[in-house]
Amino acid sequence: MNTTRLEAFSDGVLAIIITIMVLELRVPHGTEWSSLTPLWPKFLSYLLSFVYIGIYWNNHHHMLHVTQQVNGAILWANLHLLFWLSLVPFVTAWMGENHFAAVPTSLYGVVMLAAAIAYLILQRTIIRSQGDQSVLAEAVGNDKKGKISAFCYLLAIPAAFVHPAISGGLYAAVALIWLLPDKRIERVVAAESGSEGMRE
Amino acid sequence: MNTTRLEAFSDGVLAIIITIMVLELRVPHGTEWSSLTPLWPKFLSYLLSFVYIGIYWNNHHHMLHVTQQVNGAILWANLHLLFWLSLVPFVTAWMGENHFAAVPTSLYGVVMLAAAIAYLILQRTIIRSQGDQSVLAEAVGNDKKGKISAFCYLLAIPAAFVHPAISGGLYAAVALIWLLPDKRIERVVAAESGSEGMRE
Amino acid sequence: MNTTRLEAFSDGVLAIIITIMVLELRVPHGTEWSSLTPLWPKFLSYLLSFVYIGIYWNNHHHMLHVTQQVNGAILWANLHLLFWLSLVPFVTAWMGENHFAAVPTSLYGVVMLAAAIAYLILQRTIIRSQGDQSVLAEAVGNDKKGKISAFCYLLAIPAAFVHPAISGGLYAAVALIWLLPDKRIERVVAAESGSEGMRE
Amino acid sequence: MNTTRLEAFSDGVLAIIITIMVLELRVPHGTEWSSLTPLWPKFLSYLLSFVYIGIYWNNHHHMLHVTQQVNGAILWANLHLLFWLSLVPFVTAWMGENHFAAVPTSLYGVVMLAAAIAYLILQRTIIRSQGDQSVLAEAVGNDKKGKISAFCYLLAIPAAFVHPAISGGLYAAVALIWLLPDKRIERVVAAESGSEGMRE
Repeated sequence: MNTTRLEAFSDGVLAIIITIMVLELRVPHGTEWSSLTPLWPKFLSYLLSFVYIGIYWNNHHHMLHVTQQVNGAILWANLHLLFWLSLVPFVTAWMGENHFAAVPTSLYGVVMLAAAIAYLILQRTIIRSQGDQSVLAEAVGNDKKGKISAFCYLLAIPAAFVHPAISGGLYAAVALIWLLPDKRIERVVAAESGSEGMRE
Repeated sequence: MNTTRLEAFSDGVLAIIITIMVLELRVPHGTEWSSLTPLWPKFLSYLLSFVYIGIYWNNHHHMLHVTQQVNGAILWANLHLLFWLSLVPFVTAWMGENHFAAVPTSLYGVVMLAAAIAYLILQRTIIRSQGDQSVLAEAVGNDKKGKISAFCYLLAIPAAFVHPAISGGLYAAVALIWLLPDKRIERVVAAESGSEGMRE
Repeated sequence: MNTTRLEAFSDGVLAIIITIMVLELRVPHGTEWSSLTPLWPKFLSYLLSFVYIGIYWNNHHHMLHVTQQVNGAILWANLHLLFWLSLVPFVTAWMGENHFAAVPTSLYGVVMLAAAIAYLILQRTIIRSQGDQSVLAEAVGNDKKGKISAFCYLLAIPAAFVHPAISGGLYAAVALIWLLPDKRIERVVAAESGSEGMRE
Repeated sequence: MNTTRLEAFSDGVLAIIITIMVLELRVPHGTEWSSLTPLWPKFLSYLLSFVYIGIYWNNHHHMLHVTQQVNGAILWANLHLLFWLSLVPFVTAWMGENHFAAVPTSLYGVVMLAAAIAYLILQRTIIRSQGDQSVLAEAVGNDKKGKISAFCYLLAIPAAFVHPAISGGLYAAVALIWLLPDKRIERVVAAESGSEGMRE
């Protein structure tokens, strides 16, 4: 079974998640510039989550690009990832509406950590089915970025109770780390292409 | 006519169904961990329906994978299935908001039973158009899983009035039965591939 | 330019239209079977619109199937159709919430008539670009079904002020006329396939 | 990496944006024709934004059509464009609900200007990766339309404080300029096709 429909379904879910978050930016009652002021925390948390979902979409795109075949385990590992990402609009709204209060900011980290772990599981599941010599296995290597991100979330969850700004800084830092798509895969693919008959 | 657009439309509808259910998880007013407590029944019913829609997507994926051609009857049998699945967010929200009260829990079973029957009709319609010797006909066989599921829903509908937990347990059991994608199709496909020129 | 992306975008919009209509089925407050009673008009209008959008999707699918190329005029004729269909959730909700009151039931016909005209314009635009000898031109012929539907809507718009049930009956009749996908196209395609190199 | 999934994801996001805007057309309480009167400003702003999103989809379609390969920079430039477009439902609702009051009408121009700049950045990013001799570079030329549009938005942002109708007129004028898809690309593609092996 090839990856077309898995990608299409994931694209659909991610496109909806990224778009329904904007529905939380409720239209203000006034018509002055100042009417927008109370929306800033919501806008900031929307922006952060938009970037995160964008990162997941990009990395998912790269990963599936070097996947030749999907099986039942991969389908479920993918749905597991989508489940955690589907909770992002909820935690984004809770955090934004409460001006980055401690508990919502901490919960944001919990959901992000769960999504990161789900992504790792999906990655492992694909590598297992493709073989250790596959392009993906080679490209991912020891996955330093993934480990740093998980570590940052682990720090951010309790740090929100010291000061939510620490957690916010950590979330922004993780976003910056990933903002560039996975060069590792791009590099390895570029090196290999031409030699083997790759999917696509 | 091939299956591409039927799959794309179904993916779109299923992706939207699975994602709009999360909108029922309304953001709580407080900012304590305890503010999340009243959300547990909603979260549980969301999780159950997410798994169910995931199962339908997986099985639909497998079934269409071994379908070469679609005709008018298949298009409508598919829309009929999507109609019942489109009611899942409604019954999920009603059940979750009312802490698994008897009537909503029973109605959940009614919609699930209708969706299961719609799936069976779609399966029959495809097999009829593909021929009794088709990969799908062979793979589905006597469809033991489908029959057990329908039987569980039939039990769960009245059982909710004895105690909703019995129905809840039956719904969870059905989810577990299907959690693994249809190995039968995977097995038969694996056996046949290489011999015939299959779609994909 | 081929039709892939036009179909994908239309599938997306139609999938969202068909699914967001269900959001109007607001969860009732009570937990008795009787709590569902006031939802019947909404459910009926949802069912009617679901079938209508399904019909448009099916016919659109058939029409694009015999379209080889798209140009700017086709893209805009398609967006024009999607615009009118995007108003269907609004008129469906207004009609359902007010128990098929005269004005909403009449407006439902206005939007349906506009969508039917938009569909005809799209059909003409495609035929003009494909040539009068194209499969589509041959298949559509004098489009008796399309003319009957438009005539029914024209009757239903004023008839709602005599009694909304007349309009409701006309809407149901049109749905039944179209419920079967366009056999004409299927027949002509079946006749031609094998001879020419068709798209797909 | 080819453009398939980038197009699919963008189609999904644009389809959702164009459709959720209609949710702002809240169903009126009365059942008279006059109950629809207060909806006119909302309907007008919906129509304007529908056309704008349609224009972006059309031009995006044309641009990606002559793009052979995507890289990380293109993926992010595309997400950047989608971010600004995702704010369109918000500004559309704010402007429509407040009968084209000065500040919301001005903010509409700000978001449109940002989206126009994001589109230009995406265009530059693709041209840089394709080479100055690419079909796209040739087709876009000095991009007179893009420059006029940006200039109109720049005028419309302050003009809303003189009278919102001036801005409204400018927005409508820009829509008219773009209503026809990018003939330049169509012309160049038509000229080149047959000679080179183009994607598709």
